[in-house]
Amino acid sequence: MGDRVAVNAVTPCWQCDNCQRGFSSQCTQPLGGYKYTAQKDGNLAEYFHVNDAQANLAPIPDDVSDEAAAYTTDMMSTGFKGAENAAIPLGGTAAVFGLGPVGLMAVAGARLLGAAKIFAVDCVPERFKLAKEYGADVTVDFKKQDVVAEILRLTGGKGVDSAMEALGAEPTFENCIKVTRPGGTISNIGYHGHGDYIRIPRLEWGLGMADKTIKTLLCPGGSERMARLMSLIQAGRVDPTKMSTHHFKFAEVEKGLNLMTTKEDNVIKPVIHFT
Amino acid sequence: MGDRVAVNAVTPCWQCDNCQRGFSSQCTQPLGGYKYTAQKDGNLAEYFHVNDAQANLAPIPDDVSDEAAAYTTDMMSTGFKGAENAAIPLGGTAAVFGLGPVGLMAVAGARLLGAAKIFAVDCVPERFKLAKEYGADVTVDFKKQDVVAEILRLTGGKGVDSAMEALGAEPTFENCIKVTRPGGTISNIGYHGHGDYIRIPRLEWGLGMADKTIKTLLCPGGSERMARLMSLIQAGRVDPTKMSTHHFKFAEVEKGLNLMTTKEDNVIKPVIHFT
Amino acid sequence: MGDRVAVNAVTPCWQCDNCQRGFSSQCTQPLGGYKYTAQKDGNLAEYFHVNDAQANLAPIPDDVSDEAAAYTTDMMSTGFKGAENAAIPLGGTAAVFGLGPVGLMAVAGARLLGAAKIFAVDCVPERFKLAKEYGADVTVDFKKQDVVAEILRLTGGKGVDSAMEALGAEPTFENCIKVTRPGGTISNIGYHGHGDYIRIPRLEWGLGMADKTIKTLLCPGGSERMARLMSLIQAGRVDPTKMSTHHFKFAEVEKGLNLMTTKEDNVIKPVIHFT
Amino acid sequence: MGDRVAVNAVTPCWQCDNCQRGFSSQCTQPLGGYKYTAQKDGNLAEYFHVNDAQANLAPIPDDVSDEAAAYTTDMMSTGFKGAENAAIPLGGTAAVFGLGPVGLMAVAGARLLGAAKIFAVDCVPERFKLAKEYGADVTVDFKKQDVVAEILRLTGGKGVDSAMEALGAEPTFENCIKVTRPGGTISNIGYHGHGDYIRIPRLEWGLGMADKTIKTLLCPGGSERMARLMSLIQAGRVDPTKMSTHHFKFAEVEKGLNLMTTKEDNVIKPVIHFT
Repeated sequence: MGDRVAVNAVTPCWQCDNCQRGFSSQCTQPLGGYKYTAQKDGNLAEYFHVNDAQANLAPIPDDVSDEAAAYTTDMMSTGFKGAENAAIPLGGTAAVFGLGPVGLMAVAGARLLGAAKIFAVDCVPERFKLAKEYGADVTVDFKKQDVVAEILRLTGGKGVDSAMEALGAEPTFENCIKVTRPGGTISNIGYHGHGDYIRIPRLEWGLGMADKTIKTLLCPGGSERMARLMSLIQAGRVDPTKMSTHHFKFAEVEKGLNLMTTKEDNVIKPVIHFT
Repeated sequence: MGDRVAVNAVTPCWQCDNCQRGFSSQCTQPLGGYKYTAQKDGNLAEYFHVNDAQANLAPIPDDVSDEAAAYTTDMMSTGFKGAENAAIPLGGTAAVFGLGPVGLMAVAGARLLGAAKIFAVDCVPERFKLAKEYGADVTVDFKKQDVVAEILRLTGGKGVDSAMEALGAEPTFENCIKVTRPGGTISNIGYHGHGDYIRIPRLEWGLGMADKTIKTLLCPGGSERMARLMSLIQAGRVDPTKMSTHHFKFAEVEKGLNLMTTKEDNVIKPVIHFT
Repeated sequence: MGDRVAVNAVTPCWQCDNCQRGFSSQCTQPLGGYKYTAQKDGNLAEYFHVNDAQANLAPIPDDVSDEAAAYTTDMMSTGFKGAENAAIPLGGTAAVFGLGPVGLMAVAGARLLGAAKIFAVDCVPERFKLAKEYGADVTVDFKKQDVVAEILRLTGGKGVDSAMEALGAEPTFENCIKVTRPGGTISNIGYHGHGDYIRIPRLEWGLGMADKTIKTLLCPGGSERMARLMSLIQAGRVDPTKMSTHHFKFAEVEKGLNLMTTKEDNVIKPVIHFT
Repeated sequence: MGDRVAVNAVTPCWQCDNCQRGFSSQCTQPLGGYKYTAQKDGNLAEYFHVNDAQANLAPIPDDVSDEAAAYTTDMMSTGFKGAENAAIPLGGTAAVFGLGPVGLMAVAGARLLGAAKIFAVDCVPERFKLAKEYGADVTVDFKKQDVVAEILRLTGGKGVDSAMEALGAEPTFENCIKVTRPGGTISNIGYHGHGDYIRIPRLEWGLGMADKTIKTLLCPGGSERMARLMSLIQAGRVDPTKMSTHHFKFAEVEKGLNLMTTKEDNVIKPVIHFT
């Protein structure tokens, strides 16, 4: 093992009430594990401070590249947790709505966790292609198809065991509830940034009585989890670098950040190289 | 054991896909375990047909009265399941919104399952009195107090581990999410009978990232569960007949049913006596 | 809240791999959370060092006595965890073998977690009396009765849902497996201090195919859990001081410790008072 | 979908107490779901009776061969359940002891459920080859290596998250406990056919306090589960027919059965063809 380490987007203290309860992403307060952007900055600098470093620095094995390791700090951890929360039965059915990097990792996570049929919903051909590589069995284009009707049709009218929302949009969240069968799980992964309310469609929620469970999450951090994610990369179970559609030198960092906003040129993830 | 038996409101087939998956209340279809009112009638008659009787007839022990046993067929099973779904940590905090019979049984269930502090929300003094007897520690009158502010105040700003919605109203559902701490569980028990949508307040839901889980249920049936509920009555752990505020002979059945609609005279549950 | 604090027997670092995995009692290594006797001493002194104090010091509320709080540092936490591990269904049956302080707290825990019928096994009348006060429904004297036969008889031949071993002896462990029904849980609480092997009776284990689960534990520590335990004391749900059969001043500490060894005079727990 | 159906080795009634509790393999009594050999025969005949057929007949999709479907009736269901019981964390480590057909399916199950490193223990080169194809990362030959030392060495002294016993032998069971880390799970899959006791090594069990869990199982049946297993075959996630090392016509059935006893010629599974 070399001397490279990765730092997750979420760096809990591991010792407050919420951390002791097992909800380290909610460190001290809602979403409190997410400290960098919100509470302190500098993590693009040459050196920066990491709180509770013994628990939050994850050594990078020699056979894992910097680029691959970077994905364990957010996209892989978040998308995989979305799949873990989805409670997919072995051989069950799953749908992922939104095929950005987190959604693609949710697809990969669903595959790693034993789903037999994975529906991937988006409208961009390049994303569909990647989703297939990460394990999707069927792609559904919401611009061309009635997503809910199509998924219900392809599951014999039953709906899926597990639906993952990886966009953070209300219509998508609604659709997740609509395509999930009774007793199934809706795993919200997306960040919902707008409006006062997110709406649950009453009928498809079974009037509040259909045993449907709605879970949420914030990217889980910690060296122990990150080591497991890196093990999956080492073992060849998943290669997150397929999502690196664009590469920039550090001097071009603004270009990369702009691309994240514009989503132009079919970007999935731009990678900034420091050296 | 005598020759009396009880029949739950929900009578699953136990053999369809949903039953095999463990969601017997969703027998063959959403809410499908609830067969009597919806699919067949006659269960107020002297004799009536019970599907899959070997699994759905629950013998009533000699030391459990007909009146007590009647509560195991819906109120106790539903309210207790609400508390089971609430994932209350031992010594944790719980809030129950709505103190009708199901809500009162949710209070009793929360007490039986180890909550250390139970908040009971309603506005009717007689219901508060019963809630206290069933184990509530604090009553909160929504007509006199800002329920959310009060519960947050009494939990030191943290909110409760588990909130149970036992009314089936949108404002109550919203409040459940508002008083639940990150990592906590909202257990919906109420039947939501109106509107196209039930709304989740975005901020208090942590923008979809606060690890809050929303569970739902329909009254679980089955002889095995009902035997356990009757064991609790036999052992004196709970006495559901305290909720029997009114008694009628069968000839007066319409009076009793009317009372259920009007909620007059501080009724909790009217009991119809056949003999 | 005053300025008194309690320190659990187990003081995890909360940040190592095992702690991050949720097994803080196994901090860094098997049983590694148990640091005082094994790794450092002095905790009977006027001042002593507490590692990771922000997570391991538990404030004692004003209405909880020092004596009651002392029980949360081991007996209550251990016995209650034994009941939590036992996976008792609501209204289910449970048996506790061994009614020392940890066993008595397992009885109290089983009661708090919703068991409808609790069997308490020992041979000392004073312990039976306390077990009844803590919630046992039936006492079984292993010197007078065939414990396994009696529990099977009283459960209609089925056995219990959950059996707790609170002694740390092989015959008791065997009996736990023998009285547990298929699909049930054996929760080992006792410390097994002798021999190379603990034996599982093959037939009653269902030839390794009866869906019986064997769980183990070491006293869980941490301020968050201890606060919940103290909440239960505050709310009057449990009074551990009933177990204080003997009281000594600090000058008599050796007497108290001897009593722990000899088990004379029907001692349950001797309390050492520092002032 | 055609008109072929498969019948699992376990055919529960789905309605007795144990079935309602979710332990359908323990139908009415320990191991009671296993009815054919024990309670009735004829299932090698041209026609035979299937109890509770609506729940126990699993339609075989057109693109699943008879041969592949046969594996869902026992080997796949049993081995996969062993992996499900093993509680493998995503990216965690797992060891499978014994690479007969059930052990090989446990390897495949561990891979399907997200293990990053799978150790497969046996001594037969042909089995190692198949284990690799089913997802094993490392093979350990117990005739050439100290299995426990080797697995501990390869996990940096920590041991695995999950160990699966797929042989039904005491030394193997012991080794499972020895290689499992604190907080890990031992999943017993093997049938233990001999002796009065199965022994737990005391020290490696952490004196009964290392948070190690021992689970057991009997092959789960039911049309719902079998449909999911067939979905995995349809989707190409697993091909159980790789285990078919020998093929016989029905007239040669005795040869095939003998081979099961002698284990000669590196047999994994002999397949009997009726037509």
